Amino acid sequence: MTTTPLTLDEIYALVYAALRNAGSNDVNASAVSRTIRNAERDGSHSHGLFRVAGYVKSLKSGKVDGNADPEIIKVSPSTIRVDAKNAHAPLALERAISALAELAQAQGIAACAIVRSHHFAALWPETEALAENGLVALTGVNYKNWVAPAGGREPIFGTNPLSFAWPRPGKSPLVFDMATSAMALGDIQIAARDGKEVPLGTGLNAEGKPTTDPSQIANGGILLPFGGYKGSAIALMVELMASAMVGEAFSYETALTDNNDGGPPPGGQFLLAISPAILSGNPQWSTHAEQFLAKLENMEGVRLPGARRHQNRLDTGPRDINSELVETVRELAK
Amino acid sequence: MTTTPLTLDEIYALVYAALRNAGSNDVNASAVSRTIRNAERDGSHSHGLFRVAGYVKSLKSGKVDGNADPEIIKVSPSTIRVDAKNAHAPLALERAISALAELAQAQGIAACAIVRSHHFAALWPETEALAENGLVALTGVNYKNWVAPAGGREPIFGTNPLSFAWPRPGKSPLVFDMATSAMALGDIQIAARDGKEVPLGTGLNAEGKPTTDPSQIANGGILLPFGGYKGSAIALMVELMASAMVGEAFSYETALTDNNDGGPPPGGQFLLAISPAILSGNPQWSTHAEQFLAKLENMEGVRLPGARRHQNRLDTGPRDINSELVETVRELAK
Repeated sequence: MTTTPLTLDEIYALVYAALRNAGSNDVNASAVSRTIRNAERDGSHSHGLFRVAGYVKSLKSGKVDGNADPEIIKVSPSTIRVDAKNAHAPLALERAISALAELAQAQGIAACAIVRSHHFAALWPETEALAENGLVALTGVNYKNWVAPAGGREPIFGTNPLSFAWPRPGKSPLVFDMATSAMALGDIQIAARDGKEVPLGTGLNAEGKPTTDPSQIANGGILLPFGGYKGSAIALMVELMASAMVGEAFSYETALTDNNDGGPPPGGQFLLAISPAILSGNPQWSTHAEQFLAKLENMEGVRLPGARRHQNRLDTGPRDINSELVETVRELAK
Repeated sequence: MTTTPLTLDEIYALVYAALRNAGSNDVNASAVSRTIRNAERDGSHSHGLFRVAGYVKSLKSGKVDGNADPEIIKVSPSTIRVDAKNAHAPLALERAISALAELAQAQGIAACAIVRSHHFAALWPETEALAENGLVALTGVNYKNWVAPAGGREPIFGTNPLSFAWPRPGKSPLVFDMATSAMALGDIQIAARDGKEVPLGTGLNAEGKPTTDPSQIANGGILLPFGGYKGSAIALMVELMASAMVGEAFSYETALTDNNDGGPPPGGQFLLAISPAILSGNPQWSTHAEQFLAKLENMEGVRLPGARRHQNRLDTGPRDINSELVETVRELAK
């Protein structure tokens, strides 16, 4: 694989130009460009420039409204709904997080339902931003039904990622963000592109047989949940919370209505935010947690979730990007 | 294994007598007896009569106060704290659930921190009770540090069970309740008692070597998380939420302070409750969810989490209990 070095500013500028060319207005294009730049900054390649073509396709097909103005609706004393109005998710999320953080700090806990959004990124930007406001955060989305439940052979769950963040005042939050499938779809697509094998147990081919070939899984095959029936239960929880709980579609419903333009389908998302300062009643809650986290960080063979991304973030230099991918995005940005 | 048939009423009466003998007052003994009877009713043997000796030991050692009067404290508009005052958890939980359900129905979402509680049961009674109030529910507890994080060889997490319930008006809720270790401690202790092997990957022996002998894991060995680094992240989330987030001890702190009488150590618990009716804004939220759940239930090889327990519950007849266990409890009840 040949690579091309791009600075973070160049990444932002390329994405912004590609989105504006495809019809996004400034606020929407800026929000998506920040999301993609930050993904490349943190080494989260499957959610970086790799996604630009899909974002552009969804604007060109008319599925996503690049001029949408997401609206926040107060639903009850501790819940809000954000109608993304068919925007790409990032602008809706920036507005949602600010409102949700304020509400959780006043109420102790708050929830946000996001509807009519098109999510095509990682989830850690959401939980990390809430944690940077001193809040414990949890979020999940569903997608199209690619994943079979444990014991089954028909796909019904999305890859249903779940992200959690723990605030660490003065430090980067502890953050995990994981597909509840054995592997994230973006990682399978990248493995297929790069001709790499995936571990047995990741998925089945179109004939329902186990395979290590990611292109067989991505083309007519199905994914399996991580961790057997326990991981399958977590996938089920995310599926229910990101759909009926927020008033949005299940993964199998989304698959039936999406126009399959290669961009993000419409869907829902839940966000929960909890104030540990309020709930614990302990002004030293963070010191208490840091004693525990220090033990974990000092344990041989163990790394805190999110630590590699935060390490990557310290590098302000250019990123080496797949040259073919850079060419694709440059064409779109012309 | 020889067994002795006991009716559900006989189970309740035996447990109640054993707890009263050991110093519990009526309200505390009743709450624990209901919890144990319901566990046996649902086939959840590792949380049934098997636990009575431990409950009794914790009363006799003075660690648990059988006359405690758990108190509910309103902390913020959407959060409550329940000081269990060193009671066994069931009485504190009955009070917590009633207050939390009311708060979540008014606010849309609410959280409860339980502190100074001694939890020795399954978690599904809590989430199921909240779901029977029309709420989505999530709870978790930690314990003593028996479980190593993925990649590590030192125990730092408890078995950290997580339970989730989805309300199904007119039906039993969908409920999962799972240790985030590869196996629950109670199940390992039962396997050791019955001389059964456990799957490789469940834990390591005292020398840090993989073993299928549950007694080697339970005596000086360590447990591993389910599902590799993803399951380990879930275990970490439960550990943080059941300790620093609610103002209680981490598993490793509990292990240092517990008197090791064989009963439940003191600790914390978090409970979250969300109104899908409020958050979704969809009066048909349940019908929508039922369409999805019907698909899942009709899928070959798939069973909804909790379905086996709810099936067991329909049997109102006597339960066949390990005879040695019955003798132990009868002695305590004399």
